[in-house]
Amino acid sequence: MTVVEAPAAPTAPAAAAVPSVPMGQQWLYGSAEGAISIRQTYAQLTSYALAKAKARPADSVIIDEATGKPFACGNKPLAAVFDADETLIWNIGPMRWFALTGSEFDAKTWDQWEKTGTGKAAAMPGALEAMAALRAAGITPIANTNRSATNAAGSEQTLAAAGLGEFKHGETLFLMGDDATGSSKDQRRATIASRWCVVAMAGDQLGDFRNAFNKPEAPPLARRTMATAAPFDGLWGNGWFLFANPVYGPSIRGGFDDIFPPETRWEPQDQQGAR
Amino acid sequence: MTVVEAPAAPTAPAAAAVPSVPMGQQWLYGSAEGAISIRQTYAQLTSYALAKAKARPADSVIIDEATGKPFACGNKPLAAVFDADETLIWNIGPMRWFALTGSEFDAKTWDQWEKTGTGKAAAMPGALEAMAALRAAGITPIANTNRSATNAAGSEQTLAAAGLGEFKHGETLFLMGDDATGSSKDQRRATIASRWCVVAMAGDQLGDFRNAFNKPEAPPLARRTMATAAPFDGLWGNGWFLFANPVYGPSIRGGFDDIFPPETRWEPQDQQGAR
Repeated sequence: MTVVEAPAAPTAPAAAAVPSVPMGQQWLYGSAEGAISIRQTYAQLTSYALAKAKARPADSVIIDEATGKPFACGNKPLAAVFDADETLIWNIGPMRWFALTGSEFDAKTWDQWEKTGTGKAAAMPGALEAMAALRAAGITPIANTNRSATNAAGSEQTLAAAGLGEFKHGETLFLMGDDATGSSKDQRRATIASRWCVVAMAGDQLGDFRNAFNKPEAPPLARRTMATAAPFDGLWGNGWFLFANPVYGPSIRGGFDDIFPPETRWEPQDQQGAR
Repeated sequence: MTVVEAPAAPTAPAAAAVPSVPMGQQWLYGSAEGAISIRQTYAQLTSYALAKAKARPADSVIIDEATGKPFACGNKPLAAVFDADETLIWNIGPMRWFALTGSEFDAKTWDQWEKTGTGKAAAMPGALEAMAALRAAGITPIANTNRSATNAAGSEQTLAAAGLGEFKHGETLFLMGDDATGSSKDQRRATIASRWCVVAMAGDQLGDFRNAFNKPEAPPLARRTMATAAPFDGLWGNGWFLFANPVYGPSIRGGFDDIFPPETRWEPQDQQGAR
């Protein structure tokens, strides 16, 4: 291996060539491993929720941000709360479009996707089996998503067309614009917890669990420390279930010093000092 | 949004600039979400293995490729079998080096890493707790990895220095070169199953479970269908546990037609026909 004096610039494809599929999308949307990771988490969630439904819990897994404690279950009917995008469905339609055109996420294209994507989103691996098992156990699946309330009909139809069953706006589908708190899902979670005993909650990003975790501006390590500290550390895999999404979102951040801790720095011996 | 006539070429960083961290590595090694995904899977594996240890199973979760059936447990001691790289440890040292120098994986650098990486690999989130819980329940962790038998001492020391405890070559550490079958782990798995009752198996790639799945040349969809078909579909999350790794390996493959099924093709209305 030749000594590397300076980092090679990544090879840019010829200008008119079709770009390659991003690695994270190859893994998540295409590979056996990505599908298995998702199925495993759905199986884990289902098993947990069904056990909870048998021995009815006193508390929801939703935190009341006013008190820092879980909402009480009382005699409310059982539910499980899911984010929609990259939690119930894979948004393969627009992700392909963004990758193919070399464009970033943009709000106008996404708005069109919410309106016209019915039939083009795929239920995630294991999601259909999970929805069926939850409903058979008397647990109602509810979606709490930052899709827009303006496009409620499109999102209802998209979820139904993917085979996930009925999600009805205002009853089992909660959208951005349902209240005055914008992209925070906390108030929608409080609304849900006032009506339901929530035995499991799932998403692909920290904001799907508590808005206090949703600090995209925080350095990755600080964000990670916050989300995995007591008393929340014990909830992951036990009421809170996270689906892998290495494709987009506030998890995809950080420079070399953020991602590779200084104590793990290493260089091959024949190249030490090359950088 | 302007109409895109042709895909924009990805922006190449200035030649002498430090490249950015690949998205998959930002997610896996740096983000709260990546850490939580790994911890969740460790918790799932541990819970499963401890339950199995209580009600001793008749069969190992290792398939005898000669018969297609699981190896019998008999009165063998209990074990759990792990791949090492991106299953027990994160190889942050060389991954940083490859990303920083804009270089691909290369065998010579990796060989040096196996020899000199002690103290520079990080135990994956939840791995230490899992090893402790398994050992306390009388389940011996065993590593089956394609690190080289030539570098056995380095890998033993790397695992120990990461806090994972003792893995001893030939007893609880199985390496490429231990037999004449190269990178296939099947024969090593058979050797392990002849000595141990294996209650759980874990890895980040299909080859960590059955070499018959390990067909990097197969189109992604075929590979995925094969690995999730009966009778193996029921093992994922139930004896077989897969850790997310969107960073490297045979899962990271495929062009647009492989990753985005034709039936999910979608374009924003104002840009239809742009491609």
